Amino acid sequence: MSEHQDDQKQTQMKEHLLNKPLSRRDLLRMAGIGGAGLLLGAAGVSGVLEAAGAIKAPENKPNHAGNGGIVDFYGEHQAGITTPSQNFIMFAAFDLVTVSLDDVRVLFQAWTAAAAAVSRGETVQAESGNENLPPADTGEAAGLSPSRTTITFGVGASFFDSRFGLAARRPAALVDMPAFGGDELRPEWCGGDIGVQVCSDDMQVAFHAVRNLARIGRGKVVLRWTQEGFQRTGAADPAGSTPRNLLGFKDGTGNPDVTDNRLMNEVVWAQPEDGTDWMAGGSYMAVRRIRMRIEVWDRSTLADQEQTFGRHRSSGAPLGSANEFDPIDLNAKDDTGKALIPVRSHVALAHGDGSVRILRRSYSYSSGMDNKTGQLDAGLLFICFNRDSRKQFIPLQQKLGQNDALNEYIVHNGSALFACFPGVRQGGYIGETLF
Amino acid sequence: MSEHQDDQKQTQMKEHLLNKPLSRRDLLRMAGIGGAGLLLGAAGVSGVLEAAGAIKAPENKPNHAGNGGIVDFYGEHQAGITTPSQNFIMFAAFDLVTVSLDDVRVLFQAWTAAAAAVSRGETVQAESGNENLPPADTGEAAGLSPSRTTITFGVGASFFDSRFGLAARRPAALVDMPAFGGDELRPEWCGGDIGVQVCSDDMQVAFHAVRNLARIGRGKVVLRWTQEGFQRTGAADPAGSTPRNLLGFKDGTGNPDVTDNRLMNEVVWAQPEDGTDWMAGGSYMAVRRIRMRIEVWDRSTLADQEQTFGRHRSSGAPLGSANEFDPIDLNAKDDTGKALIPVRSHVALAHGDGSVRILRRSYSYSSGMDNKTGQLDAGLLFICFNRDSRKQFIPLQQKLGQNDALNEYIVHNGSALFACFPGVRQGGYIGETLF
Ligand code: HEM
Ligand code: HEM
Repeated sequence: MSEHQDDQKQTQMKEHLLNKPLSRRDLLRMAGIGGAGLLLGAAGVSGVLEAAGAIKAPENKPNHAGNGGIVDFYGEHQAGITTPSQNFIMFAAFDLVTVSLDDVRVLFQAWTAAAAAVSRGETVQAESGNENLPPADTGEAAGLSPSRTTITFGVGASFFDSRFGLAARRPAALVDMPAFGGDELRPEWCGGDIGVQVCSDDMQVAFHAVRNLARIGRGKVVLRWTQEGFQRTGAADPAGSTPRNLLGFKDGTGNPDVTDNRLMNEVVWAQPEDGTDWMAGGSYMAVRRIRMRIEVWDRSTLADQEQTFGRHRSSGAPLGSANEFDPIDLNAKDDTGKALIPVRSHVALAHGDGSVRILRRSYSYSSGMDNKTGQLDAGLLFICFNRDSRKQFIPLQQKLGQNDALNEYIVHNGSALFACFPGVRQGGYIGETLF
Repeated sequence: MSEHQDDQKQTQMKEHLLNKPLSRRDLLRMAGIGGAGLLLGAAGVSGVLEAAGAIKAPENKPNHAGNGGIVDFYGEHQAGITTPSQNFIMFAAFDLVTVSLDDVRVLFQAWTAAAAAVSRGETVQAESGNENLPPADTGEAAGLSPSRTTITFGVGASFFDSRFGLAARRPAALVDMPAFGGDELRPEWCGGDIGVQVCSDDMQVAFHAVRNLARIGRGKVVLRWTQEGFQRTGAADPAGSTPRNLLGFKDGTGNPDVTDNRLMNEVVWAQPEDGTDWMAGGSYMAVRRIRMRIEVWDRSTLADQEQTFGRHRSSGAPLGSANEFDPIDLNAKDDTGKALIPVRSHVALAHGDGSVRILRRSYSYSSGMDNKTGQLDAGLLFICFNRDSRKQFIPLQQKLGQNDALNEYIVHNGSALFACFPGVRQGGYIGETLF
């Protein structure tokens, strides 16, 4: 089949899937299309075909033997937000190179099918069986388990520029990130029309997902930036204990309880009354690539380090307390009347009066060296979810950027903010509420 | 204590440890030294102190609850060579900034103690308990299990230049790497006076090791380059099955059997008769950072991909065979008389007549994006061990660089060769046979 014919058939299929019910004849005609330029994830396609009773469509091959470690892609909210952290992340920001909204919609449908397949540990698309076509799946995740993989999609402010006629639908909460004190942002780690957070207990599975999303999107999107991250995997720590960041401190202690639905509605999930109907049940994801000045930190004293965070390094307890989860009391004083938790410490500023909360879901990163300085390029890929960044992440970071004692040891060099869609119901697709 | 005094005491301690037996008075004097500038790994120091009965030295704290996953650092050969692959690597190349051979020796002793401690899942040094000193260990591996961590040390050709008076001891096998066809080497991923391969089942533990080695070596070494790598972790594949590289093919099938001592002596371990006495029991480590042209590969057909490697993608079997471990028969022909395994395929060239073998121990890498091209910077951190690179790695790579069909999809941009010392006996230190 020529490329041209192939394109024609694809267009027909797109139209069908988007606009009209499929006739048996349409289906049989479409079934002739090979895997080459096939943009629709096979799960979606075969689902449609089978439902219509037209053909026994080829099936996505399970990538694994068991079926453990599956986090459902579908649901009221997107997975990967209140999901307990996995061990690895591959974050990817994409820019659209198409100017057709239809293209974007079709892409999002294809990505939905692929993401759902990956979450089940299946190949992203069914193989055509034709060895004269590129394989439908790149293969490096064959044999690997689903690994609790989640793929979380969002769109950045630039998505709502003049290209797609969506300016009026831009959420007020999806502001342009203001400049923060101490920012040293580098364009190669900032922004993006689309942000995709892939988390998995297997780095290879996470890589496979991003690579195949990029591949499925070829001609419609280009990668803008990516960042890998990790946390411990070989923990002998009791399950559920708080992992440490690369400054050696437990990180995540003060997070809100993700099993508390009321709290999540307050802190994480955009609500119908927030003014952007299509975002209800979604969440805003702030991403900051924060380099740590490892070598400087490593020369600071333990006392300095603990004063910087306002917590004990070993236990993670607030200074002056014994246990990690003891409450933070900013009024507690030592014998000399000095605040036990220094006012400019990270925790004092980030906690404040406890009324402004965010859900952090950060990963450590190590990306070789900074060749300019000869030092490790390592730090925190800070990610947080919040209901409205104007009231949560941004004022928090304004305070921190200005006064945080930690600023001596870190520098923010990447930044992005994405509106993450509400969850996708089975049969639906990401972004459906927006289109 | 002033920095100057501190330095003085350190020098005294070095002299003691290197040259003369310790008196009780010396020991008590030395015991006053804090952890701040302490260059000697605590295990080594406390060992000496305790053995002399002088003090009850502070102990390195176990980082973990259990004691599973320990690969012994000490032994006839260095660990991390015939050790079954772990899931992660952090490779680090260092350059020496000292010109004193004594400094180097002391550094290698400190690194020995630290590496042995890390392999046992302990902190790299004992904490001083003084919060007005920097912590002796950076803390991010606290609570993590030993994770089968191995740390393998080697020295590059530049180690034998005029600085340390060791030129005459440079092994003939430690040649300068020749230029290979298709090389696009970048200085930021090449060479190094010292090469350290840290492998672990926990990325955070691997990072912790490199960072603390760098820290212990401050003033004596600087990092030259580092590269992180991974393989699958969430495998539902049967244990021991061959992992896939990022081109989707099983990678490692043709490796020699590491449990066959005779074969390892032939292929991997430098022998006394090889001409460099201090390298007997050691091995030469070739490191190549090989970028994959992921996007080009992903557009090639399955048939092309299989012809490129000379193996089937799904099973890993040689073309024309059914099972992964079926022998490679380069004479096998199809009905039309064409070789089943193309002569320019990677496996045909790498296998040859089967007489030249190496032990590969590569990891996949994903390092964000190449901002010049907008494509993923991902590929293979190729590492192999061999007894004599002049007869093994180099001629192999000369053949591959010239003719390998795979060259359409890869480009070598980093390169280094290190002479990895023989193993360290308990109480000894890395490089001892050389000094
Ligand atoms: C490299 C940068 C950062 C590091 C290493 C870091 C580390 C930490 C640590 C160790 C804690 C205490 C334990 C815990 O509650 O998790 C903490 C708490 C917290 N951090 Fe950060 N953080 C960083 C950046 C940020 C940023 C950019 C924000 C938001 C703008 C932030 C917001 C918070 C909040 C809200 C808390 C909890 C405070 C509370 O207890 O209520 N952090 N962080
Ligand atoms: C990105 C670069 C490379 C990739 C993706 C790659 C991949 C593979 C694959 C898939 C196989 C077949 C399965 C196996 O036996 O492991 C293989 C075999 C092999 N490769 Fe590579 N390889 C690369 C670079 C190299 C280099 C640089 C060398 C050495 C100079 C090399 C030497 C070998 C050898 C010796 C074999 C085994 C051949 C035999 O069966 O006897 N490879 N490689």
